[in-house]
Amino acid sequence: MYEKLRGVFAPITTPFTEEGTLYTEKLEFNVKKYALSDITGYLVLGSNGENKSLRNNEKEEVVKTVIANKSDRQVTMVGSIFESTGETIEFALKAEELGADFITLLPPSYFKSAMTDSVLIKYFTDVADSVSIPCLLYNAPQFAGGVSISLNAIKECSKHQNIVGVKDSSSGNADKLSLTVASENFAVLSGSANTFLSALLCGAAGGVISLANSLPNVVNRLYQYFLDGDIKKAVELNKKILTANYVISGKYGVAGVKAAMDIEGYYGGPPRLPLMPLKEEDINNIRQMLKTIDWDSNRA
Amino acid sequence: MYEKLRGVFAPITTPFTEEGTLYTEKLEFNVKKYALSDITGYLVLGSNGENKSLRNNEKEEVVKTVIANKSDRQVTMVGSIFESTGETIEFALKAEELGADFITLLPPSYFKSAMTDSVLIKYFTDVADSVSIPCLLYNAPQFAGGVSISLNAIKECSKHQNIVGVKDSSSGNADKLSLTVASENFAVLSGSANTFLSALLCGAAGGVISLANSLPNVVNRLYQYFLDGDIKKAVELNKKILTANYVISGKYGVAGVKAAMDIEGYYGGPPRLPLMPLKEEDINNIRQMLKTIDWDSNRA
Amino acid sequence: MYEKLRGVFAPITTPFTEEGTLYTEKLEFNVKKYALSDITGYLVLGSNGENKSLRNNEKEEVVKTVIANKSDRQVTMVGSIFESTGETIEFALKAEELGADFITLLPPSYFKSAMTDSVLIKYFTDVADSVSIPCLLYNAPQFAGGVSISLNAIKECSKHQNIVGVKDSSSGNADKLSLTVASENFAVLSGSANTFLSALLCGAAGGVISLANSLPNVVNRLYQYFLDGDIKKAVELNKKILTANYVISGKYGVAGVKAAMDIEGYYGGPPRLPLMPLKEEDINNIRQMLKTIDWDSNRA
Amino acid sequence: MYEKLRGVFAPITTPFTEEGTLYTEKLEFNVKKYALSDITGYLVLGSNGENKSLRNNEKEEVVKTVIANKSDRQVTMVGSIFESTGETIEFALKAEELGADFITLLPPSYFKSAMTDSVLIKYFTDVADSVSIPCLLYNAPQFAGGVSISLNAIKECSKHQNIVGVKDSSSGNADKLSLTVASENFAVLSGSANTFLSALLCGAAGGVISLANSLPNVVNRLYQYFLDGDIKKAVELNKKILTANYVISGKYGVAGVKAAMDIEGYYGGPPRLPLMPLKEEDINNIRQMLKTIDWDSNRA
Repeated sequence: MYEKLRGVFAPITTPFTEEGTLYTEKLEFNVKKYALSDITGYLVLGSNGENKSLRNNEKEEVVKTVIANKSDRQVTMVGSIFESTGETIEFALKAEELGADFITLLPPSYFKSAMTDSVLIKYFTDVADSVSIPCLLYNAPQFAGGVSISLNAIKECSKHQNIVGVKDSSSGNADKLSLTVASENFAVLSGSANTFLSALLCGAAGGVISLANSLPNVVNRLYQYFLDGDIKKAVELNKKILTANYVISGKYGVAGVKAAMDIEGYYGGPPRLPLMPLKEEDINNIRQMLKTIDWDSNRA
Repeated sequence: MYEKLRGVFAPITTPFTEEGTLYTEKLEFNVKKYALSDITGYLVLGSNGENKSLRNNEKEEVVKTVIANKSDRQVTMVGSIFESTGETIEFALKAEELGADFITLLPPSYFKSAMTDSVLIKYFTDVADSVSIPCLLYNAPQFAGGVSISLNAIKECSKHQNIVGVKDSSSGNADKLSLTVASENFAVLSGSANTFLSALLCGAAGGVISLANSLPNVVNRLYQYFLDGDIKKAVELNKKILTANYVISGKYGVAGVKAAMDIEGYYGGPPRLPLMPLKEEDINNIRQMLKTIDWDSNRA
Repeated sequence: MYEKLRGVFAPITTPFTEEGTLYTEKLEFNVKKYALSDITGYLVLGSNGENKSLRNNEKEEVVKTVIANKSDRQVTMVGSIFESTGETIEFALKAEELGADFITLLPPSYFKSAMTDSVLIKYFTDVADSVSIPCLLYNAPQFAGGVSISLNAIKECSKHQNIVGVKDSSSGNADKLSLTVASENFAVLSGSANTFLSALLCGAAGGVISLANSLPNVVNRLYQYFLDGDIKKAVELNKKILTANYVISGKYGVAGVKAAMDIEGYYGGPPRLPLMPLKEEDINNIRQMLKTIDWDSNRA
Repeated sequence: MYEKLRGVFAPITTPFTEEGTLYTEKLEFNVKKYALSDITGYLVLGSNGENKSLRNNEKEEVVKTVIANKSDRQVTMVGSIFESTGETIEFALKAEELGADFITLLPPSYFKSAMTDSVLIKYFTDVADSVSIPCLLYNAPQFAGGVSISLNAIKECSKHQNIVGVKDSSSGNADKLSLTVASENFAVLSGSANTFLSALLCGAAGGVISLANSLPNVVNRLYQYFLDGDIKKAVELNKKILTANYVISGKYGVAGVKAAMDIEGYYGGPPRLPLMPLKEEDINNIRQMLKTIDWDSNRA
């Protein structure tokens, strides 16, 4: 189980047409290209996938398309992100049926003040009890109305045999989790380029890195340097990745990730309203920045 | 238009069975009872309605049931609360088709940092442009991941002819809006017992008050005292309402509102998971408190 | 004791010269004028007093000047606001020696995450044990790095015989405290015009109201209407007060309070750096607003 | 100038007796011991120094004692942390007179909502204009009521010839600053073990690391490994440092830092009230943890 979680996962975006409808052909195109890359797998229907902006039938179509077009060796985590326990289980079962390898679970947050440790632990274990494929916690307070999964709740959930890891996207926390709760039965994944290398060095299994949407092999090379113990090269490449990431994801979010994909030969396209696409000058800003970085010397 | 927004609205809860399925018969029962009360109308599928915990077909069933069982003179506002502009419009059109009088719109918040004034204004106006029935803004940062609708955005939206008011559930803000943006073309509604009377005194049209779920006539009497200019009686009754509300909604949230409904002869029942029903001692706490308050002297 | 806390207190500002030095003559001038007004007393060295921007010798000078120039019937609360228990006690004893009637205590907040209920309760009781004059809690998370005094901590402190009340400046909370912890041994004071009248109606003893710095008799008249049971007049006047306060304190803070004082015949002058004085257009904005409000009809 | 900022700085604690008075002899003892260690220098009167809990005469005594007992080669940064521009300058001049090498400046935060970029930039430049020794910005929203210094404000301040760097204690931010604003004229210092190594790898000049209070040579060895390009050893040691730091500073704050000092042969002693000393079991927790870590293999 744990082995499947090693390496780089792309938290893939969901392609839309200019009119905002799901653009399945472009998703197919992207995944076929990723299938030729070195990355370990995909987070489907995560935050960069604009999960909450998709209808359930669209979500199913996205999962099917990814599974049909990925490489056999590649692994899929599918976000089942809803406010009610019931719908979360329902969609998780659907994802399981469609062939997903893992389910990724963000805390509900509409009733934020009710989301105590015990309520969250029950939520996660209720879902984990109901599906056969293993579950991952997803800690991202910036996308969960400020609700974070406490260290205590993570430890408690890690005892459940069907909760096999946590993806942490909050600042610095992936390092801490890697040193404190990671084990051979419980994987920690960094959810951000900002913490990817340092989390790996602290014992993380891998990372779900938005830059892998536009530059999968670059991000995977960082992981490879780490595996090879070539820390110096890893550090050099990491500086470039961080520099790119501060602009693309940090400054521009999903719209920036999609713009970078367009620049790098994938289909990014517009995000769905109310998210707005980038302005031309912001796209140029990213293009210019990506040009400046000398990735190639790292490809050697 | 404005006249329809005067008075007390119950932000009705959605009844569930012990197993967590929609309990339409009980909703029918509740609405038939409310139909005999004095309240002006309903907020259907708001926060107390556990909007985000309902599937779309369930939402439609709820709207239909309310409209079929309410009194003819009663007005319905229906929450169309989604993360994407497209789904918000889609469901708003459905609600319009089913006979809703108003649409209530909460800001999207998953991508909180992208929710600038201009993005929110575009979101609200895109929806208002797409439906024929009038829209109300719903400002409740506690349920919108901390996103609030700025005074500036409210002013801007108030110019749109199809955006006819705002329901404000944030502390103290309903007073301020009543004094600064309320007009005969733009209604301010208090979203909490905490601010209901003071907002009325400042020019609010009415309120959407969770205590009206269990004690509709009591809350409506407060409004009536206000209408009659009997401020002293209003103030006396308001103290009782506040005292009850600090415990029911303030301390216990939706589960408390439902428990109070059970106590007062409506069907409350359990909230949907992950929300937990109250413990017996908490229910007794509410029962005891409701007994202590001498509502009757106010009914005279 | 409790009787002394009834009515309107001005949270007086500290006058500075254009160069930023303490301007004792102007403080004398202001207090002599307030001495002729109807207000009950003063909060000296509170937030509007720019407490944290004063050296200890300046603080003593301010206290002395107020006490020497106030009317005999007027009451003084003095803020002893420091990060260490020791300095808080030290200055509280000094204020007592100088003749202060009450000490006002804000929670320390530099080490915010360490400020648990038990730490705050110990802090307040340590101070209350050390001085002979009675102490008031001051709940204002906006000035205390987000630290608020919980309802539980307030209840616990209210048992101490030398802690006789709480001034609450957080949204809506003064109402709640007035209904839940106020007693004849424990006074609740509203710390904001936003909640003053509603808190009075819920049982508050009085208020510490920044608008009383520029319009002491207007604010006091609101209190008088309340005392007289003339709720309608109170409500009418309150709307004017709220309208003024949203701009003066709400939009412009201390600099706005000082500008309004200049307009109304007191010495406001500049705040101390890093606070900046208002721009001319902002001052005009306040002047215009104050002109528009027809206070006189309320003076009759 | 920049050279002086390279390496490890201990943000030294201020020793108190059991009664809470300044314990100068113990400060002397500590500094004489640090003088024999390898660290570059000291942050005096920072957050771990309980700056805000010291009277001005105590602050001067602390600065004098450090300067008199440190090694000649060691560098001192002195915190001048006040709410008013005037007092900040006053104490900064005093520190300069006493022989400090740098001044460290935290944003004022009492009037948080007034602390816009332009107000903060004016604050920092007003101070930097008034002293002859160079100034460092100190970004630590957790100690500044949530006020952080924006990237924009840092860039603007970095143009001032007397503002020579920034110490960043917020999660992950030191990496970003190291890659984006660090230059040979503007040093970035990590303010936390959590980001020290990664910031160094991104171009930081050094770090102000609380663990250096109890284990100065261990933290300095990490820096030395980095200098030597021995990244593997650095990474191994860093894991141990992080593990210790999550408990000592992360869980227990200043009281934990002082307890670790007591364990490691320095004088920690109690923090000043309202901060409470650790309970025996928490001290044992730290002692146990420090024993478990095999620092020696890294000393070879």
